[in-house]
Amino acid sequence: MGIARLDLAYHGGRFAGWETQAGQRTVQAALESALEQILGEPVALTVAGRTDAGVHATGQVASFEYSGKLPDSLANRLNGVLPRDIAVTAAAPDGDDFDARRSALARVYRYRVLASPVRDPFEQGRALWWRYPLDLGAMEQAAAAVVGKHDLTAFTPTRSAHSIFERNIDACSWEAEPRRPAVAGATMLALSVEAPAFMRSQVRVMVGTMLEVGGGRRSLDDFRSLLEGAPRERAGDTAPAHGLYLVGVRY
Amino acid sequence: MGIARLDLAYHGGRFAGWETQAGQRTVQAALESALEQILGEPVALTVAGRTDAGVHATGQVASFEYSGKLPDSLANRLNGVLPRDIAVTAAAPDGDDFDARRSALARVYRYRVLASPVRDPFEQGRALWWRYPLDLGAMEQAAAAVVGKHDLTAFTPTRSAHSIFERNIDACSWEAEPRRPAVAGATMLALSVEAPAFMRSQVRVMVGTMLEVGGGRRSLDDFRSLLEGAPRERAGDTAPAHGLYLVGVRY
Repeated sequence: MGIARLDLAYHGGRFAGWETQAGQRTVQAALESALEQILGEPVALTVAGRTDAGVHATGQVASFEYSGKLPDSLANRLNGVLPRDIAVTAAAPDGDDFDARRSALARVYRYRVLASPVRDPFEQGRALWWRYPLDLGAMEQAAAAVVGKHDLTAFTPTRSAHSIFERNIDACSWEAEPRRPAVAGATMLALSVEAPAFMRSQVRVMVGTMLEVGGGRRSLDDFRSLLEGAPRERAGDTAPAHGLYLVGVRY
Repeated sequence: MGIARLDLAYHGGRFAGWETQAGQRTVQAALESALEQILGEPVALTVAGRTDAGVHATGQVASFEYSGKLPDSLANRLNGVLPRDIAVTAAAPDGDDFDARRSALARVYRYRVLASPVRDPFEQGRALWWRYPLDLGAMEQAAAAVVGKHDLTAFTPTRSAHSIFERNIDACSWEAEPRRPAVAGATMLALSVEAPAFMRSQVRVMVGTMLEVGGGRRSLDDFRSLLEGAPRERAGDTAPAHGLYLVGVRY
């Protein structure tokens, strides 16, 4: 009997997100079914970041309580049962007070944008393809502006069931990935954001709005003015799910 | 009227290879159909590397003769018509004596091996997943041994319709890709090979045999002895198509 921690990577393209929903293919349902098959008892997973439909993860963490004894090579046994778009990279007992969600100090998300006049067949469903010129310097300034404590009402759907819209962002920056994409003249830009917690769609609205800054359709001053409780409709589009990755959780 | 050059990238996973075959989805058929639609005349493509079913390309080159005038933005117009697993990265008139196949001085292939105890959901269909320990130093020595002129009979199917098995290899080396795979503890190893021409399955048999050297199942001396006209059955398995990429052509 105890608490176990799972480290996970999954390609979100064919999942209706993390959370179990009747009749949908979800990551949680696939994992709980694999765990029940191997442990012989029903298991309820707690997760660090409940990713939405289509969102990927390379550093997701989940935990569960078990009553018996964990079998040897649990990660390998789970990978033998799970579909190939999920991988358990580690599975081990953790402290009795470990809870993948409540123990997390920060989550790190990454959003990838393929800046290229031509699509890249190898980045289909893995990065947002952006055909128009982008001013990376302006986007970097926008990213720097969100660091700290702000009222992020503008960056989550109005219908969101959040009660606190004032949030801290520990780090936020754009970089060009060092490995060149397969198509000539393309650059992969990636936004990394670290925060104790994220609101629904927050990173995706930030990216959609920063792309307006990068394209010259929105000034930096206007972007900064969104950070003090502006309504959702003043910010930009929600960037699509397939560019977003949960890359890590800090405990 | 003239000769045009196309630069191409494609994900080979859903193609039955380059060459048109009745009833099969091939890269050549998709491109010739898109060209005919845009140019209003049938077009016959010549290609630098006739990739097999499942093999990818990031730097493929094709050429064709046209009778009218090339339309502006041909690459963009082709990409509008083509399926999303092909991208035309450049399309432009070339010299009257240009022939993508005969003018090529060398082809460069790359084979990617994910060395990892755990699969990577983001490398499914893009790299060979190898679960066992590999001695990269031994594999590098095997790669160095193939550079130069050798009788490569051992590295192509016995039924191959080649008449000359003595071939030159200009360069051959393994490297670990600088960008780390998504799963912890994984390394992406990649073999790059440059040669004036390749025989059927040559890179894939070389990789399959070098993996035996890397795993300690075959000595370097034995590997070297294959290079002087040994029969096919003395070499190792043919590594699967999905790890192989045509990355460039030198003219």
